[in-house]
Amino acid sequence: MKRITVNASEKYDIIIKNGIISNCAEYIKAVTDAEKFAVITDDIVAPLYYDIVEKSLLNENFEVCRYVIPHGEPSKCSAILNNVYNFLSENCITRSDCIIALGGGVVGDLAGFASATYLRGLDFIQIPTTLLAQVDSSVGGKTAIDLPSGKNLVGAFKQPKIVICDPDTLKTLSEDFIVDGMGEVVKYGMIKSEELFNIIDSHTLSNIHDVLDDVICRCVSIKRDIVEQDEFDKGERMLLNFGHTLGHSIEKHYNYTGISHGRAVAAGMLMITEIAEKDGMCYDGTLNKLRSCLEKYKLVNSTGLTPAELAKACLNDKKRNSDHINIIICSDIGESKVVKMSINDFLVFLS
Amino acid sequence: MKRITVNASEKYDIIIKNGIISNCAEYIKAVTDAEKFAVITDDIVAPLYYDIVEKSLLNENFEVCRYVIPHGEPSKCSAILNNVYNFLSENCITRSDCIIALGGGVVGDLAGFASATYLRGLDFIQIPTTLLAQVDSSVGGKTAIDLPSGKNLVGAFKQPKIVICDPDTLKTLSEDFIVDGMGEVVKYGMIKSEELFNIIDSHTLSNIHDVLDDVICRCVSIKRDIVEQDEFDKGERMLLNFGHTLGHSIEKHYNYTGISHGRAVAAGMLMITEIAEKDGMCYDGTLNKLRSCLEKYKLVNSTGLTPAELAKACLNDKKRNSDHINIIICSDIGESKVVKMSINDFLVFLS
Repeated sequence: MKRITVNASEKYDIIIKNGIISNCAEYIKAVTDAEKFAVITDDIVAPLYYDIVEKSLLNENFEVCRYVIPHGEPSKCSAILNNVYNFLSENCITRSDCIIALGGGVVGDLAGFASATYLRGLDFIQIPTTLLAQVDSSVGGKTAIDLPSGKNLVGAFKQPKIVICDPDTLKTLSEDFIVDGMGEVVKYGMIKSEELFNIIDSHTLSNIHDVLDDVICRCVSIKRDIVEQDEFDKGERMLLNFGHTLGHSIEKHYNYTGISHGRAVAAGMLMITEIAEKDGMCYDGTLNKLRSCLEKYKLVNSTGLTPAELAKACLNDKKRNSDHINIIICSDIGESKVVKMSINDFLVFLS
Repeated sequence: MKRITVNASEKYDIIIKNGIISNCAEYIKAVTDAEKFAVITDDIVAPLYYDIVEKSLLNENFEVCRYVIPHGEPSKCSAILNNVYNFLSENCITRSDCIIALGGGVVGDLAGFASATYLRGLDFIQIPTTLLAQVDSSVGGKTAIDLPSGKNLVGAFKQPKIVICDPDTLKTLSEDFIVDGMGEVVKYGMIKSEELFNIIDSHTLSNIHDVLDDVICRCVSIKRDIVEQDEFDKGERMLLNFGHTLGHSIEKHYNYTGISHGRAVAAGMLMITEIAEKDGMCYDGTLNKLRSCLEKYKLVNSTGLTPAELAKACLNDKKRNSDHINIIICSDIGESKVVKMSINDFLVFLS
């Protein structure tokens, strides 16, 4: 078992342990006074893990109810959020109860935002079951829903009471979901750790499972360090957006259904690094190393979009700060920085 | 000019001054770096005050856009909130811009919640134009929308950067709105200040205008003291709910359109004090003093509902804490306390 403590505005632990989901309630009861739990999950995860989580909670004599959303990014919307609110209301969930997110990033973001806002906030617990959620979205307290005009445009900072991470759950994932998560995993190597990058680069999709526990720990530790320095996303935390400004625009272009988040981030990292290398903003070879690594995880595909086509979509991206935009550049493997550009320079840079 | 400073998680001032709305931007520029302002207002307030606010902002070379919602409680819903989000998105509002709530409690609660959640939070300023908003809802950082199942069920704590309170705006209010606000004003006297109660009681609806500046200051100071002690509503702040548990249920019964908030709170205060006096929980005469004072402000009317009829609606009230409910009792004018009751005792108490 590995325990990583996050010293955010509220201190909490991320527990990484194979099989922990079966006795999750033992960890849960140590961090909340709640006796009633509303589990938010999706229609893929529910048949696999809901009964296991429920059994553990019932064993501790807790009351449990559940709400199952359709899987996929389109559920991260105000209509489904309202369904969640109505579910919480119908089940008489009060301020002293607790919401559990059981699933991937969509479930975590949606349930987290509901936890931040229902009755102006109640306890919240993450049980991430996808690689992407385990290495990235379940840690750090960012919650959100999408608007028709863009991703994550509405949200709140809501730190969980605990993150219960069971790498065994990744074994039930289809290859697509592993590929998706590896996009963010490669990002962590790129922005902060050549060592992590080399571990990823010396494996492939067929044998990365052997070292996933270690990889998850390294990613979470990097994110923890960044979040502790900048919980509310005003500086250092922007590094986590490497590949995301263009990535979000790619996802948006395909209406959040045509391309997964990890694939879009991979495409965004490649595109921005290609331009940065041309502009002399990174060491020669950085782009090749990145592309070669991404190829091992089936993460190099044409997005069917040119940088110029993405520029317009980017301009409404939430990361845009007035007439400037913050771009993340990796000058080398493991070395990243925020570059503040005027919108005009950004458009020139992309073209 | 009176300046009341609130030492909440973010420190801010409430400025009370006749005519201040005409040069509001002078105060605004001192508290935010924003250069672009989205003004949220309603269709009653916009024709009266929007141009004045806009002119002041333009004088300081700020950019301004506005969104006008229909007036009244039904606008405090997720559908109108989504319209506000879309407006913010279409107008390219960024994290470094600022939202201004210009209007009464509905505008303040809705715009405040949008400010707390759009892009995970941006600067927010209150310009309350009703008595109810000036004495109560604009101060303290509670923001919310209603759900079909209840009032203020979804929300966030979001402290404004400044509250700009112009008592002159109250002169354009119809008597109904003054009556509405007086419900909360009487509440402040009841829970914390016999002196304030006596000022109210020695006036009537026809001459209360003469002392409204002083009355607003006293109410805001009481609320400030309470909020500073308990920003996140876990103890002392519950006193502000005197009359509200039953009041909210009355509003809900009439679908938030049949009776105004202040009238519902007045009815709630009377009902709970009547029951408390019967139970020997307050000094003899408290009920009569309260009723006599409320009568001077046309706040004594039959709600058409018995306490027992309200009990069921109360049970889904957000103030219910698991199997207990917190009731506020005034044992004397200016003396209040929180009484924690089991749901069963509460039902017996009401019947």
